Amino acid sequence: MKKLLNDPLRCADELLEGLVDAYNGDCLHVGTRSIVKKEIPEGKVALLVGGGSGHEPIYHGLVGRNLADGAACGDIFAAPPPNIALEATQAVHRGKGVLYLYGNYAGDVLNFDLAADLASDDDIEVRTVLIWDDVCSAPPTRKKDRRGIAGLVPIVKLVGAASQTATSLDKLEALARKAVLQTRSVGVSMAPGSIPATGKPTFEIADDRIGLGMGIHGEPGVGEIPMAKADDLVAQMIDLIFTDYQTDEEVADLEAGNEIVLFVNSLGSTTMMELLIALRKAKSILTERGIQIYDVIIGPLVTCQEMSGLSFSFTRMDDELKKYWDMPCQSVCYSKMEGHQGA
Amino acid sequence: MKKLLNDPLRCADELLEGLVDAYNGDCLHVGTRSIVKKEIPEGKVALLVGGGSGHEPIYHGLVGRNLADGAACGDIFAAPPPNIALEATQAVHRGKGVLYLYGNYAGDVLNFDLAADLASDDDIEVRTVLIWDDVCSAPPTRKKDRRGIAGLVPIVKLVGAASQTATSLDKLEALARKAVLQTRSVGVSMAPGSIPATGKPTFEIADDRIGLGMGIHGEPGVGEIPMAKADDLVAQMIDLIFTDYQTDEEVADLEAGNEIVLFVNSLGSTTMMELLIALRKAKSILTERGIQIYDVIIGPLVTCQEMSGLSFSFTRMDDELKKYWDMPCQSVCYSKMEGHQGA
Repeated sequence: MKKLLNDPLRCADELLEGLVDAYNGDCLHVGTRSIVKKEIPEGKVALLVGGGSGHEPIYHGLVGRNLADGAACGDIFAAPPPNIALEATQAVHRGKGVLYLYGNYAGDVLNFDLAADLASDDDIEVRTVLIWDDVCSAPPTRKKDRRGIAGLVPIVKLVGAASQTATSLDKLEALARKAVLQTRSVGVSMAPGSIPATGKPTFEIADDRIGLGMGIHGEPGVGEIPMAKADDLVAQMIDLIFTDYQTDEEVADLEAGNEIVLFVNSLGSTTMMELLIALRKAKSILTERGIQIYDVIIGPLVTCQEMSGLSFSFTRMDDELKKYWDMPCQSVCYSKMEGHQGA
Repeated sequence: MKKLLNDPLRCADELLEGLVDAYNGDCLHVGTRSIVKKEIPEGKVALLVGGGSGHEPIYHGLVGRNLADGAACGDIFAAPPPNIALEATQAVHRGKGVLYLYGNYAGDVLNFDLAADLASDDDIEVRTVLIWDDVCSAPPTRKKDRRGIAGLVPIVKLVGAASQTATSLDKLEALARKAVLQTRSVGVSMAPGSIPATGKPTFEIADDRIGLGMGIHGEPGVGEIPMAKADDLVAQMIDLIFTDYQTDEEVADLEAGNEIVLFVNSLGSTTMMELLIALRKAKSILTERGIQIYDVIIGPLVTCQEMSGLSFSFTRMDDELKKYWDMPCQSVCYSKMEGHQGA
């Protein structure tokens, strides 16, 4: 893979400098490797996200207007160390506590938990809500073993909007738990990305196989299947999501009349053309099942370098979530006008 | 390249179905292969864009709120035939004429011109403004030989905003000519995309070479150069843009105190990480030269399948253009809130 880099070992730092430039003054570089909004009102319940670099535009691209207040950024494919998460925590705190909202990976949990302990020494109250939307990574009874994948985009969008007016950390935490509970994703991959420092592929897969349920770093999912036509694969993926709502006792079945935000994500080199072709089939299945689409997100937002593959994420909406969805937002990762498409 | 398709010969039609689904009711499929906004007010001066498919999310993803009213969509890498452009013209016309705004490629010009002739038989007045932002495709004295590349995104954004309140086709045409005149781009590529119908690469380039000034289909530009570090390449690209403003007698030099919208585009598989690293260097050069950045666009918006490479586009702003830039917009390709980042 021919990449345009300077020093392959400084990618995470250089891309953060560029990210701050992309915000054109709306966000600032803070501490070792964090990005924080320039203006956070006193008394606001703060929202902090974060994770490894190399998956741009997430997570650090989700800081912004009506979105997260800050992000703690790890090195490429590595959790942010506790000092970085602590620096970000201190920078976003405005007296009402900080909600940590990030993907459920062991390294991230360890490091953010350490940061939360350190923050409590500064009298900063921290709560944590983990994102575990990947239904192929563990059964619903073992959610603590599930990975966070592309569903983080609608989740952070909703929680970021709610954080603008949340009156307490308790209330923001509850809203975040609801958004996570209602969000489910399934991904597939056909080819790996490459590690910027070495150029080596992130995993291996045969030319005629697809990794069904594969994670965004190439973690195994449901298993490998033969290369398929788009429509057949999409039907299998959508089925897995429906089955998950059905078998999870913590959440209601996804039924006719329900409304969802539908997100079709590319892991990197899978083209928008392919995403659109896949969306077309997903829409037809959802229509058949009587599911209403409240809004659509589509694009390469949760990536792993030039990895190929895509995922579907569903977020079931209710009146409260719709109110937060309809707020406009602006960031490098995801922006929208007020309202929703198809209103 | 392992692509998720159904029928490789039906990609353009299937992706358009998916695009309509992505708009979730805001836009409709019209005629053979066009997409048009559901609601266009009577008496509005209409804005029609279009071009070949396979470059998603442009052009057809630039239809939307405060953007284009419709797009005529060709087959993969092929201009829309006259009947498709005519159907789109008839569908967007609301009595005040239609502005055609699209990239300067021979096939597109031929077909859109034929559609304009046919439209005049229906008493629909059409004007055409060509986009020719690629400064490496011909000298400034031969603009009619220049290609349209990524600069189309800020141009369509501005003209789409202006079209909401334009009182005549004359006035919208004049605004479009100004936006085009002030927009200049330079692109590079390291590796080809592939043709969906055959899987064959769109061009060839050695492993240790970069195509400097290469077009979005692999057209030759300034020439091939050795693979470079990001910062060195970015400096060369930015120099070419400055030189073009300087040597073009139709436009003022780009000078200290000028304000630009800066767009960093990926042609497909070049990662957001690389775009951000490149932006970081561009920002530092612009700051040194005293150029103010009014806003930033960054992402894979003008692509050629999984082609690798990136481009920079500058659009010099004045008070009128800023007013239109600041309007919010919503589409599959580009969305923003009101105002601009760094305000």
